[in-house]
Amino acid sequence: MAEQIYRVNMTNLTTSTEPVPDKWMGLGGRGLTSTIVADEVVPTCHPLGSKNKLVVAPGLLSGTVAANSGRLSVGAKSPLTGTIKEANAGGTAAQMLAKLGCKALIIEGLPKNDIWYTLQISKDGVTIQEEKELIGKGNFAVVAGIGKRTSAKHGVMTIGPAGEMKMLSANISIKDPDSHLRSSGRGGLGAVMGSKKVKCIIIEPTDAKVEIVDQEKFKEANRTFTKALVDNPISQALGTYGTNVLVNIINESGALPTKNFTGGQFDGHEEISGETMHDIIVEREGKPRHNCHKGCVIQCSQIYNDKDKKYKTSGFEYESIWAMGADCCVDNLDHIAEADHLMDDIGIDSIETSVAMGVAMEGGLLAFGDGEGICRILREDVGKGTPLGRIIGCGAGSVGRAFGVTRVPVVKNQAIPAYDPRAIKGMGITYATSTQGADHTMGYTIATNILGVGGSVDPLSQEGQVELSRNLQIATAAIDSTGMCLFIAFAALDDATCLPALVDMINARFGADLTAEDVTNLGISILKTERAFNEAAGFTSKDDRLPEFFYEEPIAPHNVVWDIPDEELDKFWNF
Amino acid sequence: MAEQIYRVNMTNLTTSTEPVPDKWMGLGGRGLTSTIVADEVVPTCHPLGSKNKLVVAPGLLSGTVAANSGRLSVGAKSPLTGTIKEANAGGTAAQMLAKLGCKALIIEGLPKNDIWYTLQISKDGVTIQEEKELIGKGNFAVVAGIGKRTSAKHGVMTIGPAGEMKMLSANISIKDPDSHLRSSGRGGLGAVMGSKKVKCIIIEPTDAKVEIVDQEKFKEANRTFTKALVDNPISQALGTYGTNVLVNIINESGALPTKNFTGGQFDGHEEISGETMHDIIVEREGKPRHNCHKGCVIQCSQIYNDKDKKYKTSGFEYESIWAMGADCCVDNLDHIAEADHLMDDIGIDSIETSVAMGVAMEGGLLAFGDGEGICRILREDVGKGTPLGRIIGCGAGSVGRAFGVTRVPVVKNQAIPAYDPRAIKGMGITYATSTQGADHTMGYTIATNILGVGGSVDPLSQEGQVELSRNLQIATAAIDSTGMCLFIAFAALDDATCLPALVDMINARFGADLTAEDVTNLGISILKTERAFNEAAGFTSKDDRLPEFFYEEPIAPHNVVWDIPDEELDKFWNF
Repeated sequence: MAEQIYRVNMTNLTTSTEPVPDKWMGLGGRGLTSTIVADEVVPTCHPLGSKNKLVVAPGLLSGTVAANSGRLSVGAKSPLTGTIKEANAGGTAAQMLAKLGCKALIIEGLPKNDIWYTLQISKDGVTIQEEKELIGKGNFAVVAGIGKRTSAKHGVMTIGPAGEMKMLSANISIKDPDSHLRSSGRGGLGAVMGSKKVKCIIIEPTDAKVEIVDQEKFKEANRTFTKALVDNPISQALGTYGTNVLVNIINESGALPTKNFTGGQFDGHEEISGETMHDIIVEREGKPRHNCHKGCVIQCSQIYNDKDKKYKTSGFEYESIWAMGADCCVDNLDHIAEADHLMDDIGIDSIETSVAMGVAMEGGLLAFGDGEGICRILREDVGKGTPLGRIIGCGAGSVGRAFGVTRVPVVKNQAIPAYDPRAIKGMGITYATSTQGADHTMGYTIATNILGVGGSVDPLSQEGQVELSRNLQIATAAIDSTGMCLFIAFAALDDATCLPALVDMINARFGADLTAEDVTNLGISILKTERAFNEAAGFTSKDDRLPEFFYEEPIAPHNVVWDIPDEELDKFWNF
Repeated sequence: MAEQIYRVNMTNLTTSTEPVPDKWMGLGGRGLTSTIVADEVVPTCHPLGSKNKLVVAPGLLSGTVAANSGRLSVGAKSPLTGTIKEANAGGTAAQMLAKLGCKALIIEGLPKNDIWYTLQISKDGVTIQEEKELIGKGNFAVVAGIGKRTSAKHGVMTIGPAGEMKMLSANISIKDPDSHLRSSGRGGLGAVMGSKKVKCIIIEPTDAKVEIVDQEKFKEANRTFTKALVDNPISQALGTYGTNVLVNIINESGALPTKNFTGGQFDGHEEISGETMHDIIVEREGKPRHNCHKGCVIQCSQIYNDKDKKYKTSGFEYESIWAMGADCCVDNLDHIAEADHLMDDIGIDSIETSVAMGVAMEGGLLAFGDGEGICRILREDVGKGTPLGRIIGCGAGSVGRAFGVTRVPVVKNQAIPAYDPRAIKGMGITYATSTQGADHTMGYTIATNILGVGGSVDPLSQEGQVELSRNLQIATAAIDSTGMCLFIAFAALDDATCLPALVDMINARFGADLTAEDVTNLGISILKTERAFNEAAGFTSKDDRLPEFFYEEPIAPHNVVWDIPDEELDKFWNF
């Protein structure tokens, strides 16, 4: 099916399908969302105003049988950071949109009235329907409600109460193959969707297939690619323990931010580790392995049941567990799972919200370690939009401002995730320089700083960190454009057959003749497009800095501060 | 008495007096606070962290008998705007500090513990004392408490609960000659004082006099200067009706922002006008004329009593009355007076807080016009620091973010005051380009746009506004350095004898030989110093913009939008 751009104007409630302009033709995923945002959004606009646009794009390989290619990119100007933003997630939407021939969905304008809408996407385009039944509902109820209204096979993208209330860390949830949720979590894209009064996007299933120019070459390349993924030891560890395998590893490295980033190791790390989680899941008859999208061969997701062996949460990630766990000093995995479930239902970024809780704890709102208190505040305040809930729902920076806390771990107002930049300096470079605020997924130097993948760079040294982060940020921007899960990077860095096979698949899909260098250049081009948007929005190198306290407070056990000179940081963009 | 710099280090609780460095010698007031902040504060620092400094400086003529010379400047990096900040006010402190020989007081560092302090200033320097009794108290109780502890003649600078809680629009209150309060209101300087755990600054009275090199010349010049002030018709109107004379004038001009800046005229303008206020004051046996500092010959302050003829508030200014009145649609002057009293007691900027209430009303928190509701929220939420109180106490931008309101009238996160920039375009230039966020006092084009002082520039035209604002911003920076009240500007613009007399007084005081051009150059130099600080903090021309809605929504009755091109705005700094 010929690819098209689906466009929805919420001001006059019209929709259209448009041919893909030549300039967007070779792009997908993040490359496409960032390019469209840069092309069409006024950089200085209010992120929740009429001039922002929400852009959804499957990756270049989404909808094909390529392993791990089912990630969806969502982009806009972020209301949390003020920068350009792309957040990607699994679920069924990317593959379904690609099969419908939807190269990208662009939602623009704001309704003039106070009515909510649902968008329904089919091969014929988009229809806009008034939505009443699902307004105010949590994400799980929305997915169930749409399942009843349509079918279990329909795709769903939705916002919860947080997005309806335009909380600055509201996410967009995407239905996975088991009708659970995956999240485009970071940067408040759910608030952008909420500002446009779109409660959910329903995607019709189809039997259509995406066109592959050279089927044989594609299959052959996919075999090689899949083998590289499956054989990789980190892929295997991720399959067994999930991303939460990292709790013990990062704790051991002394970089597990604890008690609102006052220490690098957490006494309760065993209680919340991937190993412990695995045993609990097995004991409660959950699923230690689970895929967030069809075709994933790593299967780092899992299904975590409660004590009564009933479903509690899935996609129970290291970063969320770290944030509610070590950062808030909660050593009870069931409290963290309950919080994770609540955040999924409310539709709010679990990293931002948990780090915000840690800041609030330092501000005296709650005692460190009070997991039940966290769940109560999520349920009664954040979910209901009380003033306290709105302070927390607007993120860690918001909590710092409201409660006069100066130790606020954010860059560009987005919460720093699960790796302390003082003890893993490559991550500090990524947090500081990323076009999207602090985000580990933008240039995951843990691979090389800690896991010894793609070489080895001492995490405590100043040497080589800028180059490491730069290379990874470029590669990541390219991978995020393919629809591939970022976890292919471990195999790509370690197995010489992996990356060429990925390039071969892209070439076979489009009848193209790209080289590995072209892919790198794509990554470079995306970063520069994003950076230019941010500069036009008013960002400068002064925004590429970590908070003051990282420069001043040594973190145990290494007793190190953030010591990469600002001039060194500014060299990041010399490419 | 030889002037000295008084320095207090709150980290190690030490104090010192230092000779005035040559580079600071010819400076006073805002010129001195901004220069010291630029010299000693890291521009990118956290405003509530250890690297910010609070600087207090009387003007060049403060402490002399020069008419209207009793204004005090307070400066720091602002926690509200992130820019450099100077807020000045009357009261007795400027004159007392000058007589003690205190050229400037610099408070730096943060205490290591959780103890509050009082600073006591005498001719021998500063002493630091632990403070318990006054913690948690409102400003009126603080002034009364210090009066009992010392004498009614002691000077007081204090923060209320808002400053203690580090709310981003907390102000610093200064005792006036009648033990009422004046406020260094804007930009959250009270939060900076609170971050340093200084509850109040007590100034010992003295019989010392400031040195005047040429007494005769000084007296002669002051006579001319005073006559120019007293004869000026705007001075006289200010004396009769206070600054609130402006409600009817600005309403008539169609630039009285109403209902969170959705209209330019307020149906209830008569009920809150200066004329009505004057009649109420007379009827209730208040004082229509009152001076905020000794030696003021304009006397725009007043004492407003309640229905029982008891003191309610003083320094009841147009901007506060507009903000609680027209902007929140409250047409009951007693409700506004009660709110003003509460804000004075809590220690929070009345412009920022009232505009924040208007945004909250648009967000659905309260009905427009509900003056009693405003007072209840001030008393029960802002004063007590509930989550709602903290959202409001952190200003209009904070309310917008928390409640998802996009029509938020702020520049650099500081609330736009009482003159709609669409209908008085010169004010828009000042709001956009000021080094301090939206602030009418930085370049009060009302003089020329509306009052016909210093020429006439059509408020609705694009022509001449940049030059008008620039000239006034330069002149204002100079006036703010003299200790003079800004209201001398009307006489200075209209009476050819006024400005030379002011320059003569400065020359007579210091034995100097300045010309009017030197004074202009001082203003230019101050603006450039402030701008350089902001640029080093990361501000760009992208921050010199009005909010989106001013470009899009025409305001009645003129049905005009903000239409000064951005390139035109950027020409402001071409000098």
